[in-house]
This record gives sequence, structure tokens and C-alpha cells, in this order.
Amino acid sequence: MTTFSSRLGSIQKKTNSFVCVGLDTDPAKLPQHLRGKKNGILEFNKQIINATKDLVCAYKINFAFYESLGKDGWTIIEKTRALIPSSIMTIADAKRGDIGNTSAQYAKAILTDMDFDSITVAPYMGKDSVQPFLDKKNKGVFLLALTSNAGAFDFQYQKIGKKRLFEEVVSTSQKWNEHHNLGFVVGATKSADIKSVRSLAPDIPFLVPGVGAQGGSVEEVIKYGCTKDGYGVVINASRSIIYASSGKDFADAAHSEALKLNNEINFFRDALYP
Amino acid sequence: MTTFSSRLGSIQKKTNSFVCVGLDTDPAKLPQHLRGKKNGILEFNKQIINATKDLVCAYKINFAFYESLGKDGWTIIEKTRALIPSSIMTIADAKRGDIGNTSAQYAKAILTDMDFDSITVAPYMGKDSVQPFLDKKNKGVFLLALTSNAGAFDFQYQKIGKKRLFEEVVSTSQKWNEHHNLGFVVGATKSADIKSVRSLAPDIPFLVPGVGAQGGSVEEVIKYGCTKDGYGVVINASRSIIYASSGKDFADAAHSEALKLNNEINFFRDALYP
Repeated sequence: MTTFSSRLGSIQKKTNSFVCVGLDTDPAKLPQHLRGKKNGILEFNKQIINATKDLVCAYKINFAFYESLGKDGWTIIEKTRALIPSSIMTIADAKRGDIGNTSAQYAKAILTDMDFDSITVAPYMGKDSVQPFLDKKNKGVFLLALTSNAGAFDFQYQKIGKKRLFEEVVSTSQKWNEHHNLGFVVGATKSADIKSVRSLAPDIPFLVPGVGAQGGSVEEVIKYGCTKDGYGVVINASRSIIYASSGKDFADAAHSEALKLNNEINFFRDALYP
Repeated sequence: MTTFSSRLGSIQKKTNSFVCVGLDTDPAKLPQHLRGKKNGILEFNKQIINATKDLVCAYKINFAFYESLGKDGWTIIEKTRALIPSSIMTIADAKRGDIGNTSAQYAKAILTDMDFDSITVAPYMGKDSVQPFLDKKNKGVFLLALTSNAGAFDFQYQKIGKKRLFEEVVSTSQKWNEHHNLGFVVGATKSADIKSVRSLAPDIPFLVPGVGAQGGSVEEVIKYGCTKDGYGVVINASRSIIYASSGKDFADAAHSEALKLNNEINFFRDALYP
């Protein structure tokens, strides 16, 4: 069986892209002509997907923005999921994690029923909270390691012996990775430390948020984050792409931004992994 | 304004109960006569609530079990929420937490739109991931500190200087508690350590899962978990109450189990805080 990790690599080779577009679609930020319209959000997502699907390896759906719409939001997630070509990786950015029998329900809901290829999961509750997701062998689990926000400094950087908490998470969780479907969330805003995560996890795929609106450096992500063969990072940008224009040209603007990001990434890939 | 913390205390005084019933309603575990029926889950919840509402201070809705039903699950959460009398505390057991703008969406969805009184939140991403929940001043935030599962030992018990991670979470997060609406999840299965959380957080309400199916001791929770005045703990039981019988008498059986738990709790309250 092809592992999740090798499938991701194949998609990145085929698309020649490390770009993930984050569909953090906020009703209040829709272009004027779609705002408040029935199906406005779905139409927005559809046009974003159509305009960027030749430039990306993945789409990440941020569940919070849909849950804030109640049950309609859930329907929009399902319909948006269905719009994404099967050749592109889907990431449910849901940051779930609970005791085993509860995580199993989340895994069923999101990975099986909604058929997302992968999900983001929080590590605080340890192995049995993550295992039900990893048990879905052909699906991927991006465990939070080092996040892109300021709050990462509160606990993730705390020292446990010689390691910091995020390094402990990275070391320990790899013991759970028997199906080669574990990945890590590693924020682009902490680029110096991407290096240390990579050294602890030479072959594990990283989902890297924090370029774009949050200001992380693409060059450093490629330099420090890639595996030896120059793969292994999925670079997410949300707001900088989907809200590149607030006018009727939003999809064209998203295309341009995604292309720009892909070109920037590929420039550094070519330079650093010739 | 009455703080969340003092409101919880008032409810516990009025109901003379520390019991929280966890509505982890699993379609596969419904009594035969409700299984597979349209509205079976809602009917089950309704009868459980009717049978136990005079015995509890809170209901906790475990979102995973509803998300596994897709958009219908979301509707059932809303309808179940509406069945809970306003005199009883509602807890959204959703374990959310993400970067600030995303947590704000979860807070809006669950605390404002769905009008839950409180929510469980994961601490790994630090202050800005928790703040949007705490900003809802009249709502409560039960931050995961020491969870009831085996995986708690993976990271929560790791030593950071002289403290363990869960103690670090407890100490640090209290600095964020300007509205007195912070609580902690502290598992009953780790009763010796409830004491150390209580000593670090003398006045903070605890949500205590892990009695019942998970085997935690009520006596120790009351002994080590209560505040000086003998309050401050909400003791959740889910499976042991709602699945006490799988027959048509499930609601009566739930009543009996909730009564038994409440009596056990109150026995130790009387003995220890006369």
C-alpha cells in the first residue's frame, strides 16, 4: 500500500507545487457581490478552487470558519470538499483531540465520512488521543508541534530536560507512526526552529502555516524544513491568497498570489536542491 | 456582574449537586427501540435530561458524537442545548483551540450563537488561542490541565524545571483570568495530582471527568479537589449514567445512576466539609 507520506510526495511532484491554499472563508470578508448571498461562501470557495487548482498540492479547510455558520457550515464543508479534485490533498484543519473513544468519533466524522485525506490534531492529551486518527492508515495526521502564533512561546518552548516541549512532542509521537502517516504542523514564523524539528524527524511531512499574513519566510522554510531530497513541506497561505482582492476579480487575484507563492517556493527549491 | 465562577457556585448550591451528565450519545448504543429511528438521538437526550435534571448542576455535550452525524448532528446539538433548563450549566465539550482569529470563530459559534455557558479548550497553542474564549466574560473556559486518559502521561507529566507541564499550564493560564471565568479539566483518575492542581489554583472551578466508566474515585475528588469552602468541582459521568440500561427503562436507570452518584458525592461532602 502507498503510505500517506509517499502519496503526498507524489502529488507534490505531479503538481510541482508545495502550496496549500487555506480556505478560511469568513462571510464578513467575502467580496461585496457575494456577501450575504445564499451560497455566497460556496461560490467563493468554488471560484478560489477553480482559479488555483493548477497551482497547489493541497487545500486546507479551517473548520472554525464553517462551524461559526452552524449546520449550514457543515454542509458547506462537505460541498467544498467535493469540489476539490482527487489529485489534490485535502487537509481538515480541525485541531481535534480527546480521549480515545471520543477521538475515534472525530476520526470517523472527518476522515471517513467526510473523506478528508488528512487532519490537524492537538497533542496535549497524548497517544490514545492521537491513535484513532493514525489508525486510519491511508489518511494523514498533522500533529501540532510548533505553531505559528505568539502563544507558542507559552508552553511549546518550555524546557523538558534538554528538549523543548515541541521537540518532545516530535520525538515521542514518531514512536506511534507505524503506518507512516504522521506529519507535523511547524509554523513558518519560527524558522530557526524548523531546523531542529527536521533534524529530529528527517522524513516526516510538515504542514507549514505562517507565510503570507503571518509573515514567515519562504526561503527559510525551504532551507530548514525540507527533507534531504528537497520535499516534505506543505506551505499554507490563507488570507494572503483568498482575500488578495475584495472585488469581483478576487479569483484572478487569488490565482496571481498563489502563482507568486509557488514561484517563490520553486525559486528557492531550485536554488537549494538543484 | 456575576462572574462565571460565582454563577457556577450558585447553581451547585441551588441544585445541591456537583453532578454533570455527559451526553456522549452514540447512535450505536441507543436502546433498541430508539436505534435507527429518526430523532432517536434527540429523543434519547430529551428523556435523559428529563430524568436527571433535578439531580445535576450541569450537562456536558461531547461534540464528537454529534459531528460524527454530519450536519444533522449539529442540529441535534442545538436542539439538545435548547432542552436544558437555564438553571443548569451547559458545557460544550469541544476541546477547541487555534490561532487567535480562528479561536474567535469557534468562540462565536459555540459560546455566542449556540449559547453554551462554557467550553473545554486545549492549551497547547498558548494564550492567544485561549483568549478569544475568555473574552466572552460571562462564559466559562475549562482549559485542559490534567486529563483522565492514559495519554496524559505522555506530555502532561513531563517536568519543566520543578513543575510538570500540567502544573505549568495551571500556573501560567491563571494570569489570563481577568474575568474570573477560567476553569480546569482535571481527571478523576489522577486523584493524587488533583491536590497539586488545587494548591496551585485555590479558587478555580474544576471539571472532573473520569469517575464512572473510567474508574476515578469520588471520595478522592471531593477530598483533594474542592475549594476551601467545599465547592469548586463539577464531576462528570457519561457512559455509566446514560447507558445504565440498554432497555426501554434507560431513563429510569439513568435517574438511578445519577442519584447514586449525587448521593455518593454528597456523602463525602457532608463528611469532609460539615
